[in-house]
Amino acid sequence: MKTEGRNAVFELLKTDKSIEKILMEKGAQGSLSRIFAEARKKNIRVQFLDKPALDKESVTGRHQGVIAYTAEYEYYDLEDIISEKKSSSGGFIVLCDGVQDVHNLGSVLRVAECAGADGVVIPKVNSASVNESVIRISAGAAEHIKVARVTNLNSAIDTLKQNGYWIYALEADGEDIYRENLTGSIALVVGGEDSGVKRLTREKCDKTLSMPIFGKVNSLNASIALGVACYEAVRQRR
Amino acid sequence: MKTEGRNAVFELLKTDKSIEKILMEKGAQGSLSRIFAEARKKNIRVQFLDKPALDKESVTGRHQGVIAYTAEYEYYDLEDIISEKKSSSGGFIVLCDGVQDVHNLGSVLRVAECAGADGVVIPKVNSASVNESVIRISAGAAEHIKVARVTNLNSAIDTLKQNGYWIYALEADGEDIYRENLTGSIALVVGGEDSGVKRLTREKCDKTLSMPIFGKVNSLNASIALGVACYEAVRQRR
Repeated sequence: MKTEGRNAVFELLKTDKSIEKILMEKGAQGSLSRIFAEARKKNIRVQFLDKPALDKESVTGRHQGVIAYTAEYEYYDLEDIISEKKSSSGGFIVLCDGVQDVHNLGSVLRVAECAGADGVVIPKVNSASVNESVIRISAGAAEHIKVARVTNLNSAIDTLKQNGYWIYALEADGEDIYRENLTGSIALVVGGEDSGVKRLTREKCDKTLSMPIFGKVNSLNASIALGVACYEAVRQRR
Repeated sequence: MKTEGRNAVFELLKTDKSIEKILMEKGAQGSLSRIFAEARKKNIRVQFLDKPALDKESVTGRHQGVIAYTAEYEYYDLEDIISEKKSSSGGFIVLCDGVQDVHNLGSVLRVAECAGADGVVIPKVNSASVNESVIRISAGAAEHIKVARVTNLNSAIDTLKQNGYWIYALEADGEDIYRENLTGSIALVVGGEDSGVKRLTREKCDKTLSMPIFGKVNSLNASIALGVACYEAVRQRR
């Protein structure tokens, strides 16, 4: 598996993941030399190539002069995420219901990681999975946050409920998020850009929450809505 | 000027803007037939073409079966935005400092419109301007929110200060946004994805504000940070 782009490789280097080698563009400057120094410190083999050779190795087409090689992306189990509980307020998990766009999944991972969520759950079908593009778009957050891939999202919701989580769907026509208590163990469900959270999933959720919308365009982009919701949780849980 | 994509054209139809004609893909279904009905109601000429002909007319390459033709995008003056004051709490303006990516500008317009901001200010140089792609990415929000294009962002900040606005830069190393009073007239300054808010601009701002970051990836994407900040303002100002 390839991790491409300066931020993504830099974040990868901060983890304990085993990096097989790093390819770098000849004449590395700026943040590339920081990456090189870091790689040397960790005894990782660095190979210098010219741009066309690097372009040929690139999967995303946007390597910014650096590509790192690691083993396949390792998913966690839902149980690993449940037992993570970073916050003393309780568990904090993000569920993706039909997020098929790699940009959106990358954004979701970045938001969840910044807001201190315990992990992100994605279904095996009808969902983008964590690939090179998602890692690059997440600015490396995919290397730090635990991602679980489950066969059935509704069973995952059942498991979370059994563990005392409150499950909230984020959708345009729900209750006002600013009137909801988001402390304790919570899971926020975000849907795909076009389809939103699926009807069956919503029925399994304890509540649907929305941000107040003042304009004529009646919804926020999914990852921005998730950002606003995650940070309202952060504000309340501190 | 062309407006492309279903959401964007549908939002355009809600405005008073003069639409010269609409091109539609033959065999229009789903939301396209809603657009057709709306266009008929407003006596707008609709022409049906097959997909290859529509593809040829498309600027963004993502027309989703519909392209509307209007006059050039009309910017407002900063004064128009200052006098807008939608909220009884005071003015609420977003300033872009070097947002060069059309995706980011489109997202900024969508967030600002949803959160009920009075308008968005962009500089004439070193900034994306409102084009077909920005309108499509904004999901049509660009048709509803006032956008001013100014020669000099720092002079705009001076004008806003003279009008009693507090100016906040959104950056990673500022003060905790949740400890700040965001009622009254405020302007939030968002920077470009790589460069952030420029040093000179920051020095002109009254304060730099940040969201608390709990993860290892040390910043949110610019438009998500703006979304979180705008909605914290919304929460406080209600």
